[in-house]
Amino acid sequence: MIRSETKIRVRYGETDQMGYVYYGVYAQYYEVGRVDAMRSLGFSYKQIEEKGLLMPVIDFSISYKKPAFYDDEITVVTYVRDKPLGVRIIFEYECFNQAGELLNTGKVTLVMIEKVTNKMCKIPDWFQNAFNAFF
Amino acid sequence: MIRSETKIRVRYGETDQMGYVYYGVYAQYYEVGRVDAMRSLGFSYKQIEEKGLLMPVIDFSISYKKPAFYDDEITVVTYVRDKPLGVRIIFEYECFNQAGELLNTGKVTLVMIEKVTNKMCKIPDWFQNAFNAFF
Amino acid sequence: MIRSETKIRVRYGETDQMGYVYYGVYAQYYEVGRVDAMRSLGFSYKQIEEKGLLMPVIDFSISYKKPAFYDDEITVVTYVRDKPLGVRIIFEYECFNQAGELLNTGKVTLVMIEKVTNKMCKIPDWFQNAFNAFF
Amino acid sequence: MIRSETKIRVRYGETDQMGYVYYGVYAQYYEVGRVDAMRSLGFSYKQIEEKGLLMPVIDFSISYKKPAFYDDEITVVTYVRDKPLGVRIIFEYECFNQAGELLNTGKVTLVMIEKVTNKMCKIPDWFQNAFNAFF
Repeated sequence: MIRSETKIRVRYGETDQMGYVYYGVYAQYYEVGRVDAMRSLGFSYKQIEEKGLLMPVIDFSISYKKPAFYDDEITVVTYVRDKPLGVRIIFEYECFNQAGELLNTGKVTLVMIEKVTNKMCKIPDWFQNAFNAFF
Repeated sequence: MIRSETKIRVRYGETDQMGYVYYGVYAQYYEVGRVDAMRSLGFSYKQIEEKGLLMPVIDFSISYKKPAFYDDEITVVTYVRDKPLGVRIIFEYECFNQAGELLNTGKVTLVMIEKVTNKMCKIPDWFQNAFNAFF
Repeated sequence: MIRSETKIRVRYGETDQMGYVYYGVYAQYYEVGRVDAMRSLGFSYKQIEEKGLLMPVIDFSISYKKPAFYDDEITVVTYVRDKPLGVRIIFEYECFNQAGELLNTGKVTLVMIEKVTNKMCKIPDWFQNAFNAFF
Repeated sequence: MIRSETKIRVRYGETDQMGYVYYGVYAQYYEVGRVDAMRSLGFSYKQIEEKGLLMPVIDFSISYKKPAFYDDEITVVTYVRDKPLGVRIIFEYECFNQAGELLNTGKVTLVMIEKVTNKMCKIPDWFQNAFNAFF
């Protein structure tokens, strides 16, 4: 299993008039979380695109337990519980505030796509191998 | 059943470097869709808050079939398939592009909260009644 | 002079915890305004990019007089007061709420860039001509 | 003079289809910069609001020299060159990428407002004093 932690400070522009972090903002927090998880494996998402691959999201779900507020320091915990298989990779998430309260849990599924053909493609060996070391 | 349609033109700032509408942007499109659905029942979400109620999202899921692109005219179709019950109301979604292609489907669950107590509360009669007419 | 009007309904996710539309959101509203202004001349910004040109912003300024609130219907008035000259084009703005109150005024300067060379380039004749008809 | 530095990693969702950080995103980067500048004086913007004060932006301008790209590590340098005076405070900015290239310069003017009256008010002594130590 892969597990990585990312700290994110809530920006004012991310709150809404309820005083909560807007529910759509977590898509960005989760994105930052999985990019950090990949970085901990030794490569950046940027490099993936430089190799002519894209990883769009095909599935995203999130359950909100408690709101986050302005200036909170959020910990995004990102998990990869299963080796990437075929064309897809699944990231799972837990967000906590600075008091250690669970804010939300979620799941994001990405697929790999070849930029030139715009078709799904098998996850390449170098990517697979970086993950395999953790399982 | 309630069914409402909303047109949204994709803004440049909503695209990402893949050229797709960023996956987190649909949270806003869905929000616009359900606000329009409520407006078709004769009240605005703004009025709900003016009555001392809030409706935070507690669950959001979305499956992406195809990307949307800059300047696309998206049709967000919003459904309420069941009468709001107790404290919660569920909106379901389909997004289409101008070619009629299905872009994504999703589901958002909201709960009603009393602003002063910050506690969940039963959906009030005036709200319930507006929906009942459609079922 | 070119003058065009665009209506934008404020989204919940665009407000901040002050209850105001976040000050950075107007960059998007202005973008929508100038895209509409171009559309009224007979072409879309999308077509400009399809011709291998980009129009990044090099200067943006805005003075806020009054806040906009959730669900307000904003009118963005976009002006081009001078013919585009050389590599640049200037858009000026006024935003009003549904009560006709002036919310802010602003100015955005864009330059034209050739995608392949990534260098600034003279505004092409077909673009210049579309504007000339109004001056 | 006050000078503070903030590092911000560019998120994927902040890029647009040009591959640039969208021009409106810097409003958030600048916000993060000035909040950090205040924090270095010993208080958070959050505390300001807890004391019943708001600080909306009344003026924002930015000149873009070079684009930022996905995954860039931006340094936002925030300056307060003059003591806050009367009701307003001015922050000036420079953004650099990891190669030390100047990306943009900008200026944001905020005013102080009393939440209950919704009127501008003189900057309070405790706020003024925190700044005075640096001039």
